Amino acid sequence: MEETGLCLDRMRTRAPLVHNITNFVAMEPAANVLLAIGAQPAMVHAREEVTEFAGLAEALNVNVGTPDPAWGAAMEAAAQVIQMAGKPWVLDPVGVGATRFRAGLCDRLLGLHPGVIRGNASEILALAGDPAQGRAIDSADPVEAAEHAARDLATRAGAVVAVSGPVDFVTDGQTAFRVANGHPMMTRVTALGCALNGVIAAFAVASPALEATLAALACYGLAGERAGAKAAGPGSFLPAFLDALHAITPKELTREARVLRA
Amino acid sequence: MEETGLCLDRMRTRAPLVHNITNFVAMEPAANVLLAIGAQPAMVHAREEVTEFAGLAEALNVNVGTPDPAWGAAMEAAAQVIQMAGKPWVLDPVGVGATRFRAGLCDRLLGLHPGVIRGNASEILALAGDPAQGRAIDSADPVEAAEHAARDLATRAGAVVAVSGPVDFVTDGQTAFRVANGHPMMTRVTALGCALNGVIAAFAVASPALEATLAALACYGLAGERAGAKAAGPGSFLPAFLDALHAITPKELTREARVLRA
Amino acid sequence: MEETGLCLDRMRTRAPLVHNITNFVAMEPAANVLLAIGAQPAMVHAREEVTEFAGLAEALNVNVGTPDPAWGAAMEAAAQVIQMAGKPWVLDPVGVGATRFRAGLCDRLLGLHPGVIRGNASEILALAGDPAQGRAIDSADPVEAAEHAARDLATRAGAVVAVSGPVDFVTDGQTAFRVANGHPMMTRVTALGCALNGVIAAFAVASPALEATLAALACYGLAGERAGAKAAGPGSFLPAFLDALHAITPKELTREARVLRA
Repeated sequence: MEETGLCLDRMRTRAPLVHNITNFVAMEPAANVLLAIGAQPAMVHAREEVTEFAGLAEALNVNVGTPDPAWGAAMEAAAQVIQMAGKPWVLDPVGVGATRFRAGLCDRLLGLHPGVIRGNASEILALAGDPAQGRAIDSADPVEAAEHAARDLATRAGAVVAVSGPVDFVTDGQTAFRVANGHPMMTRVTALGCALNGVIAAFAVASPALEATLAALACYGLAGERAGAKAAGPGSFLPAFLDALHAITPKELTREARVLRA
Repeated sequence: MEETGLCLDRMRTRAPLVHNITNFVAMEPAANVLLAIGAQPAMVHAREEVTEFAGLAEALNVNVGTPDPAWGAAMEAAAQVIQMAGKPWVLDPVGVGATRFRAGLCDRLLGLHPGVIRGNASEILALAGDPAQGRAIDSADPVEAAEHAARDLATRAGAVVAVSGPVDFVTDGQTAFRVANGHPMMTRVTALGCALNGVIAAFAVASPALEATLAALACYGLAGERAGAKAAGPGSFLPAFLDALHAITPKELTREARVLRA
Repeated sequence: MEETGLCLDRMRTRAPLVHNITNFVAMEPAANVLLAIGAQPAMVHAREEVTEFAGLAEALNVNVGTPDPAWGAAMEAAAQVIQMAGKPWVLDPVGVGATRFRAGLCDRLLGLHPGVIRGNASEILALAGDPAQGRAIDSADPVEAAEHAARDLATRAGAVVAVSGPVDFVTDGQTAFRVANGHPMMTRVTALGCALNGVIAAFAVASPALEATLAALACYGLAGERAGAKAAGPGSFLPAFLDALHAITPKELTREARVLRA
């Protein structure tokens, strides 16, 4: 296992260009999160340029939060280019259990071999084919309820699967880990989960998928802890969170990451 | 009349899922406003899933700020589902007087029986068929100039109509109220009006439309007052406003709401 | 040469309505920047209303950051209306060197006579037909490398061309200036460059293009300096930057602007 701090250091040295095809809500916060932590974001979605741009990018972050057929086709086209080039890409199956359209799109995207899939418990359950218990767009299901589905999905998809929650669960199907960094206020600010997937993609440019995911989750959660200690509410949380993402050093991350084998 | 604080308490207990079809500028701030006050936002617009999603949602917020024909069709489709199910929906006729395309879209949406319509004076005048005096996208017209049009529109549409301004005017056609909470800095931050309509939709899940609108306006304005007292300008206003929305208690709202019969 | 402070004062007195057809990332920050500095932003893109709206607007800001064919057509249609009416418009050729689609779109937009073109060095090099050295979406090229291309482009296009960087370079093809205001943190917050073009458009309503551009760059950079002195990182930078844009007086701008003939 690589140290989390080493993963952060490598990512920052590389400052990778991350291609995001994400939802309209997350456009700005995802770009700011990537800039704050030290990567280079770009948002490109038109069929007329998405494959050419994917050829320039070092990683891809696909998020189905506000999809339509044209954006879905762009996601598939970009994922194909990235995957053929051996570059990492990350899938965020936002609200996959909510509509048949999302379910179909996510199924097609799964066939293009994302290296990492991250969602909340309800989303991972739905993506794995289990009926989610809660409302499909938030996570009524606890992380524990999705651990079995996450292992199955990881094995079947050949991907690292991360289930976000108070304590995250991460598995590649063989081994599994828990990441305990984080702060409850992170659920009261929109698009932080969406932006996290861009961070995982950035880390995965410079480190193997499992280590990259663990380091990204720990770094993100640590920034949340620091912001939560300073913020007076969800409004002041976001600026403090971006400040913390920018300020965390590799040494601090290695010391404060709470990553444990599950 | 229900107390404003009771309306807030009921809304938070329910934490309703609010479906937003809003403009590109308001996507993120509207989601953060809804999360801060205690509701669950979702943004969904594709024809392929919008009716299915509207079936899951508890309320709908439609905003024509950056419309095009496909988004307009999605608004109509979602409003139809919501209205048939007896769930509340709120219309924000942004810039309705600016172009014929917006005027036509808003006319069709009016036919789908929004429970609440909120806009600035120029927008309410234009929607009611009176020629607005000012530039169509900001509000050159004073609230008072739109009171008659608001009463007419409320009666004709069977809706609660709210005219935003330094002192808001709210009517269901029968009775009318003024809400005096607010702060001038709210006009120097984008999309706060747009996000407010999502808040009205959330309140209307748990309280009757008139009471819900009054409570939402008072709560929003009170958060503005608190943020205005802390902020150094429009940039620091938004975080302080979200913090205040999150922190206001029902008891504080009942005590500090300035709602008067007109 | 008009004083920078005088340009700011004139712009605020006019409070111009600026029509933006910009990218999805910049929608909200660009609107907030324009509101903070004292202009009126509007975002309108649908073919069905874009020319009608351009007829109401006093200036246009076109940004190709997240283009597709429909948005590109709207940009061309709006630019045509604005230019025929003798109103100013500003082009931001984001990532023009990255894909053939962007290059083609920017070529067509150049033919519609923007009054001001602003980009980073790599973008100005690519737009001028020189092969950019760096990655097309950030600016690997130093400002100096694009000065010759900027002069050529300005002469050929009959436009003011501004190259953003630690020290900006601005030319109308005849004379040239450097603007030294600014702060390094501005590159770690998304969409600040995109929003700047809206500010240039607002200034150009009330002052000649060259003076307007210099004043806008100086004012923006000065706000960056003030925010940088207060901010703890890129997250707290943005609120402080908007506060500063709002607070800067014409007298302060004239005194602290660092505009020098090149």
